[in-house]
Amino acid sequence: MSLHRLGSKNFVHQTAIIDDNVTAGEGNYIGPFCYLTGNLEIGNNNRFESHCTVGTRAEHTEHWHKDGRTIIGDDGTFREHISIHAATTDGLTRIGNCVIMLNKAYVAHDCIIEDGVTLSCGVKIGGNVHVMRDSNLGMGASVHQYQVIGSWSMIGMGSIIPKKARIYPGQTWVGNPTRRLKTNIYALDKHDIDDYMLVEETARFTQLIKDSEFPERWK
Amino acid sequence: MSLHRLGSKNFVHQTAIIDDNVTAGEGNYIGPFCYLTGNLEIGNNNRFESHCTVGTRAEHTEHWHKDGRTIIGDDGTFREHISIHAATTDGLTRIGNCVIMLNKAYVAHDCIIEDGVTLSCGVKIGGNVHVMRDSNLGMGASVHQYQVIGSWSMIGMGSIIPKKARIYPGQTWVGNPTRRLKTNIYALDKHDIDDYMLVEETARFTQLIKDSEFPERWK
Amino acid sequence: MSLHRLGSKNFVHQTAIIDDNVTAGEGNYIGPFCYLTGNLEIGNNNRFESHCTVGTRAEHTEHWHKDGRTIIGDDGTFREHISIHAATTDGLTRIGNCVIMLNKAYVAHDCIIEDGVTLSCGVKIGGNVHVMRDSNLGMGASVHQYQVIGSWSMIGMGSIIPKKARIYPGQTWVGNPTRRLKTNIYALDKHDIDDYMLVEETARFTQLIKDSEFPERWK
Repeated sequence: MSLHRLGSKNFVHQTAIIDDNVTAGEGNYIGPFCYLTGNLEIGNNNRFESHCTVGTRAEHTEHWHKDGRTIIGDDGTFREHISIHAATTDGLTRIGNCVIMLNKAYVAHDCIIEDGVTLSCGVKIGGNVHVMRDSNLGMGASVHQYQVIGSWSMIGMGSIIPKKARIYPGQTWVGNPTRRLKTNIYALDKHDIDDYMLVEETARFTQLIKDSEFPERWK
Repeated sequence: MSLHRLGSKNFVHQTAIIDDNVTAGEGNYIGPFCYLTGNLEIGNNNRFESHCTVGTRAEHTEHWHKDGRTIIGDDGTFREHISIHAATTDGLTRIGNCVIMLNKAYVAHDCIIEDGVTLSCGVKIGGNVHVMRDSNLGMGASVHQYQVIGSWSMIGMGSIIPKKARIYPGQTWVGNPTRRLKTNIYALDKHDIDDYMLVEETARFTQLIKDSEFPERWK
Repeated sequence: MSLHRLGSKNFVHQTAIIDDNVTAGEGNYIGPFCYLTGNLEIGNNNRFESHCTVGTRAEHTEHWHKDGRTIIGDDGTFREHISIHAATTDGLTRIGNCVIMLNKAYVAHDCIIEDGVTLSCGVKIGGNVHVMRDSNLGMGASVHQYQVIGSWSMIGMGSIIPKKARIYPGQTWVGNPTRRLKTNIYALDKHDIDDYMLVEETARFTQLIKDSEFPERWK
């Protein structure tokens, strides 16, 4: 426990463990039994409730014993028993601003979680997944590695997103395996998204899908 | 850690954290790395195995920073990594007597879990859910917020209970989305339930469904 | 915390709790907030990342208050928040060599997990299950008690394996309830399995199914 590196304006519970390469801004709450490790940078005003593990090594058989990087933005809420894994070598796990991870949610190595995303209780995000902004994943949803989840999408409770599903922005998907249910009017209205913005974001989604470098095995 | 408020007849592991507004009867076991907080009242003879979080704030964007109430009855079994959340303001999270929550189960804010309910490993109960007595939820089942689960029901492993399903007392349901499989004869026999009791409990179920105050969004 | 019984060649984090009847070989890493208890024997070169609970009592209403046995082999990887339960009286929970349990995975009482098995994030293995060698269970899969999972099988993300499914060696299964998708050529090639070996292992699978002593209720 080395509270000083975190600055004077963070609350760190006396039982939390902060390893040597962790840095943080100010206004963060780090609760009981949290374990922050690896090459981890935390922004401002985040709350880690309790029993969180952040920055532990990638769950990847070639990377058990290598420390990767993790960056977390501002104003996030991270509840009990969540896990965020560091990237594999040269990669980066990136959590944006205003991200909510409810209890027991999990983000794997090399994921990018954009601003405003909500991962409900028990959500599991596989490695190298990109979740675009303001998406909402329901309780217990699971996402296959190398997937992309479009902006303003709603993934229903217990949905299983396999590798071939294409979750375009602004849609609601449900089921195992997941299927498209409807346009997510609720979110598009809430975030005041017009057709132009949706077309732009869909283009960005398509590019991200192309960019996701699938290993030979998944092609 | 303030063991005295818990009375002399409780076992509290030296690593457990009990915050100031927690009270307990006697005969409770509170194991390693448990975190009990908020306005929490615990009855007698409960066992919290380890890494439990009880009474943490509601997972509700309007209630991140408010402490609500939680009441837990007698003779409960709460296994590793479970979470029970406090109510939102003015509400109450209520766990009855002889409730079993197996490892990694989760009960959200403002839920009522009646006597004799079993929540298996990884069960997720959304906010404002009412689980009626002696129900049995299988491994990994998830229940949508504002739902009611009837007495003596069996919810199969991995079932997803959406908002519109009606889980009447004495039934077995399975699947994603869940569907009625059969009458739960096993439970009705075990608890010695006759037709009269089943009719009475079904009337209570129907009333609870009516009473569940759905927010505008869910209507 | 009694580090000496673990030998001088183990790393035990200062916050880990190791109860009196736990023994270990050498080269093990036992991370922050781990809780090892019961009649537990650990081999060599295992890594328990953090918040692991190993050897806690069986989740079985007749065995809440009895300590059973647990044996763990060599070279295992056990990630954050995993749980392994001890056997019921006279039984044995056995984890083989080179087993991988990713974060939040769970193995119940009296299970046998053979060498080389991978249990992904959030996998739930019910009581008395036998998982044969080199199987791979995807994120969030659940297995009914008294089941047998054949060698070199692949269980897809979110699959629910009910009591009547027969997961023969070398197959890929997906869905809720699970269904056979294809032969798992990937694993058979990777492990260099020829037809003769597959026939032998299938015979062993059939015998294990016969041997699994179902209680009257499940027959």
